[in-house]
Amino acid sequence: MSKPDPKWEERLSPPDTKPTSSVAEVRDDWYVVAIGRSLGSTPLATTLLGTPIVVYRTASGVPAALLDRCPHRNVPLSLGQVRGEHLECGYHGWRFDREGACRAIPGLCGEASDSRARHVPAFATREQFGFVWVYATPDVEPARDPFPFPHQDDSDYTTVRQTMELEGSLHAAAENALDVPHTAFLHRGLFRKDGGARSEITVEVRRFHDRVEAEYIGEARPEGLIGRVLAPAGGTVTHFDRFILPCIAQVEYRLGDKSHLVATTALTPRTDHTTGLFAAVSFRFPFLPGGVVGRALEPLAMRILRQDAQMLRAQTANVRRFGGERYATSELDVLGPHILRLLRQAERGRGDGAAVEPTVKTTRMQV
Amino acid sequence: MSKPDPKWEERLSPPDTKPTSSVAEVRDDWYVVAIGRSLGSTPLATTLLGTPIVVYRTASGVPAALLDRCPHRNVPLSLGQVRGEHLECGYHGWRFDREGACRAIPGLCGEASDSRARHVPAFATREQFGFVWVYATPDVEPARDPFPFPHQDDSDYTTVRQTMELEGSLHAAAENALDVPHTAFLHRGLFRKDGGARSEITVEVRRFHDRVEAEYIGEARPEGLIGRVLAPAGGTVTHFDRFILPCIAQVEYRLGDKSHLVATTALTPRTDHTTGLFAAVSFRFPFLPGGVVGRALEPLAMRILRQDAQMLRAQTANVRRFGGERYATSELDVLGPHILRLLRQAERGRGDGAAVEPTVKTTRMQV
Amino acid sequence: MSKPDPKWEERLSPPDTKPTSSVAEVRDDWYVVAIGRSLGSTPLATTLLGTPIVVYRTASGVPAALLDRCPHRNVPLSLGQVRGEHLECGYHGWRFDREGACRAIPGLCGEASDSRARHVPAFATREQFGFVWVYATPDVEPARDPFPFPHQDDSDYTTVRQTMELEGSLHAAAENALDVPHTAFLHRGLFRKDGGARSEITVEVRRFHDRVEAEYIGEARPEGLIGRVLAPAGGTVTHFDRFILPCIAQVEYRLGDKSHLVATTALTPRTDHTTGLFAAVSFRFPFLPGGVVGRALEPLAMRILRQDAQMLRAQTANVRRFGGERYATSELDVLGPHILRLLRQAERGRGDGAAVEPTVKTTRMQV
Repeated sequence: MSKPDPKWEERLSPPDTKPTSSVAEVRDDWYVVAIGRSLGSTPLATTLLGTPIVVYRTASGVPAALLDRCPHRNVPLSLGQVRGEHLECGYHGWRFDREGACRAIPGLCGEASDSRARHVPAFATREQFGFVWVYATPDVEPARDPFPFPHQDDSDYTTVRQTMELEGSLHAAAENALDVPHTAFLHRGLFRKDGGARSEITVEVRRFHDRVEAEYIGEARPEGLIGRVLAPAGGTVTHFDRFILPCIAQVEYRLGDKSHLVATTALTPRTDHTTGLFAAVSFRFPFLPGGVVGRALEPLAMRILRQDAQMLRAQTANVRRFGGERYATSELDVLGPHILRLLRQAERGRGDGAAVEPTVKTTRMQV
Repeated sequence: MSKPDPKWEERLSPPDTKPTSSVAEVRDDWYVVAIGRSLGSTPLATTLLGTPIVVYRTASGVPAALLDRCPHRNVPLSLGQVRGEHLECGYHGWRFDREGACRAIPGLCGEASDSRARHVPAFATREQFGFVWVYATPDVEPARDPFPFPHQDDSDYTTVRQTMELEGSLHAAAENALDVPHTAFLHRGLFRKDGGARSEITVEVRRFHDRVEAEYIGEARPEGLIGRVLAPAGGTVTHFDRFILPCIAQVEYRLGDKSHLVATTALTPRTDHTTGLFAAVSFRFPFLPGGVVGRALEPLAMRILRQDAQMLRAQTANVRRFGGERYATSELDVLGPHILRLLRQAERGRGDGAAVEPTVKTTRMQV
Repeated sequence: MSKPDPKWEERLSPPDTKPTSSVAEVRDDWYVVAIGRSLGSTPLATTLLGTPIVVYRTASGVPAALLDRCPHRNVPLSLGQVRGEHLECGYHGWRFDREGACRAIPGLCGEASDSRARHVPAFATREQFGFVWVYATPDVEPARDPFPFPHQDDSDYTTVRQTMELEGSLHAAAENALDVPHTAFLHRGLFRKDGGARSEITVEVRRFHDRVEAEYIGEARPEGLIGRVLAPAGGTVTHFDRFILPCIAQVEYRLGDKSHLVATTALTPRTDHTTGLFAAVSFRFPFLPGGVVGRALEPLAMRILRQDAQMLRAQTANVRRFGGERYATSELDVLGPHILRLLRQAERGRGDGAAVEPTVKTTRMQV
């Protein structure tokens, strides 16, 4: 018994701890749970907003998602097997359809009735542009559609998909993914040349009812390796960073009329401080074949992702040992506070908000 | 310091968690703590109903059990040594007798007095039919005797003993040990032939003041490997499953007049969700030498036990992450709910109950 | 998600648990955090009284200590780098001076202002006789000076330094370091000959406002290996054990006029139950060269320390699983209760206490 007694409390703790948190709980929306081609009939155990779920593909090829607990004796259904259109528990063989109804109890004389107590909460699923989405509230008709990843049907674009687990809240992961200032430090030499002269640019931040975007105006072609790969001829950059409720972080670069890259990341809040990352990078570089660019970009992208993942892990461990977050913000944190406000509003429920004018704010930044 | 701050709470948790629990706390009774031949003078550290105890055999061969904490500076007495009839702490050498009285304090001028503060709570012990039992309330005269394992003195029977640790409450382990329907799934092919035709039988459940038993009437000789080993000639089966307070799960099979097997399992609640299993399987098969049957049965029995242990572990982990149990029951769960009711009654204290008529209920089951 | 739900509580727990604790929280004083020569410009992450701090040496060679959390996004500053007199965070490059003031925010147009929110709590530091000390309250002028280790400037003495991590509260570690009776058991054969005849001596305990000392009167030269090394010719021993607030455990031996050894240990409360040990053993043996004695003593000292560390770890694990301490004390525990009383007084704040007469108590002990 290495587990401490629950009555036991540590006496010594950091002095100025405040239990504030950026953890958000937006349940009436869609999140990505898997890359489509990696989901088969073997049940996948995962977690969405702290809720254990089992995701699987039935014999007819449709994805399904249930609460990962057999109502009978509470073992994980993810230990069971797909049988046709049903999922069978591995302990006593109870079978459930994709709506969570109990359809068979082996050994029972007569039909198994699907009483309330035998029902498994079932989550709506969608498969769209290579990802499997799950609606985070069970047993309801989804209020909206999953986010449509852009350029997925456009044959001019090449798309590369990647997934990774992050130790950090959805908010911490989204802010990191859309934050410009840290790239010069954490990713030194990858985005920008180390020690190079900085130039001052304008950032215009526009907040809408369901998203916030930052446009970086007057940015020069990034120096360093990535910049040279993407735009060998230089030129002006059009650069947008966007957060779209409840889980999309998007970075868009245009170089002149032709070159275009959109990295769209769906962030899935598994638990308070673990977040799944599902990225699709779509791009079009007229001078370079998509496959070559993809292979050149991947090791760089993975190196950046790993550095970010390591920093998020350190941030999360520190938030945990201090018992909460206590952030000081500067003018350079152009998106993080807006993202938190959007998430907090969405937690309380969203209207359609279509007619609301965006708020616009301009600031200056050295890059 | 990887330990989270006690003020820290996770925000995201499963939606329909209810903190119900099948954990029972019957302290005025006996539990098995060790197989007799494996207990020597080396102190054994174990846990009974959440209480750390040290069990050892004194120089005269008697088992003894004390709270596993030296009253002086709280180190585990199990780190010490047996000295004659005393147990000596390894830190300062304080010595205690098997009643928990302090008998020596090295360095002290004069006698060591056994004040209340220096007393170690002591547990009554019994050695009986190859097992060492401990009474779970310290410093009292036991209210009853340990359960007498059957056929231990009968030379017609061969007995095989086995012990194992299970991750699951005593209730979950007892229900699993006495549950028929799961055998067709979890132990597919070991008890019953996979995909074979099922036949309908009657189950009569009789609850007494201190036990509940299910009799399976009309059961055919089990198909599959075990059935073929136990009864090569087929025949009708008499089959009882019993739970006897506070900790006995017993499965009894008779084939005709001669063949007989009783598997009696003492379940020891170590903590909420860990249970020690001490099984004695006694059998008599007229056509086969006991030693041969024992060697043939053991790998099968161990395979079944390991499958059960794995499922209990998965169930327990799921109960823990959902923060409680939430069981739906079918007509096939003939014993589980009765076992829980018996345990809850026993927690509140038992009368002798001798004159109470058993309640009887009959149901049908496909096996 | 192996983490249990916070709503989840264990039902079964040890019966007579009391949540008493010897953990003390004396924050208005100095503690050792590092051996001076092992602290360079690489930031050292450590913990003092439950508070994560980063300790480092600036370019000018001065030690500095800050709360180990960047005020911006809460990552540990210990992941950053020393830049001249500043510490730079590894995430966005914010820079702080040794007073905790924010001195640079890369990317910002204009100067970084050091607002309250951007300030890092800073701890006073001192480097003295080979150790780096930190004052445990941030952002204040220290009320007193660190303890001066004795004989550090005296060329007749040789000093050996050692550090180790202990699993135990400062109180448990201090009592262990100054406790005589356990040496005959835990360190059997190292201090005293096993099974040798014991002699009775007098112990005089004197408690002052900031310290307590025990003098052992009439002690013979210790038998066993250490005694033979230290005093080949035998003779009477003068032996003091002292605890000095808030963290000093000191053992002093004199043999005749010439031979003298003082082992001074600074104990640093990292968390409730982990304590850093920083020992300096200074000695003078006229017949033996200091370097030779040092090399002969070190393996013995380390063996004793490891045995003590192991016992403290077992004690702490037991205190944790029982949910608190419950100590019985005998006449032989001459210093432990006094140490706890001194720590509790110091938690409530210390006067200067200079004029207070010591309390004196005498007892007898077999050694």
